[in-house]
Amino acid sequence: MKKSIGAKTLAFPTPTWVVGTYDMNGKPNAMTVAWAGICCSTPPCISISLRKATYSYAGIVENKAFTVNIPSEKHLMEADYFGIASGRDENKFELACLTPIRSELVPAPYVGEFPVVIECKLLHTIEIGLHTLFV
Amino acid sequence: MKKSIGAKTLAFPTPTWVVGTYDMNGKPNAMTVAWAGICCSTPPCISISLRKATYSYAGIVENKAFTVNIPSEKHLMEADYFGIASGRDENKFELACLTPIRSELVPAPYVGEFPVVIECKLLHTIEIGLHTLFV
Repeated sequence: MKKSIGAKTLAFPTPTWVVGTYDMNGKPNAMTVAWAGICCSTPPCISISLRKATYSYAGIVENKAFTVNIPSEKHLMEADYFGIASGRDENKFELACLTPIRSELVPAPYVGEFPVVIECKLLHTIEIGLHTLFV
Repeated sequence: MKKSIGAKTLAFPTPTWVVGTYDMNGKPNAMTVAWAGICCSTPPCISISLRKATYSYAGIVENKAFTVNIPSEKHLMEADYFGIASGRDENKFELACLTPIRSELVPAPYVGEFPVVIECKLLHTIEIGLHTLFV
């Protein structure tokens, strides 16, 4: 028997990905996103969804690039912090005691201490509603 | 020390979602996708990535709708089957002994036996490369 719970953004699993960007002054920033994933094989692409209000949004638009950093369990606390604070108010890398390293491939920083990083060039920007999809 | 493994579509976790569609003759079809996720809060949206070559692709373009069916562990085998066979060659619902139920909200079928279903109207079609992103 089907029971409606309405149109809600409930689905699982979601990843815990930390998006690395530079702001317009070149300050490295990091933000945790859960609405993200692979979206194409050729060219290999991932998509991430961000609200316009986030500080990272402007960084991606400015540099047309971002990194996706996948934390290990060891950095659970830092990944959580990156998801609740804003780079507009604080230097998140400094406060999390993590190292922003400039990517050699794209104008974006990655988290030196995380085991996996994906370096991304912005290919598409799709305005959906409150969130924007970056590919 | 950073070590490049090249541009590959490796990232985790990915969901196991079964996409339900009707083909141009109204035959229900189902296909398992792993490259999918929530992408907007307002309006609540999800995105799924499909290759043009899939039978479901044409069904989504035809009906501008699809369902996302989240299987329980019990239906692991069926979800796997939906991911390797093509609706072009066989009636997947019949062979999997699962029930296609017509959604009352969108022109697409959902899997009666699965615990969760999301009924989706197609809002955006973004051609990325080998895969197309449906929102």
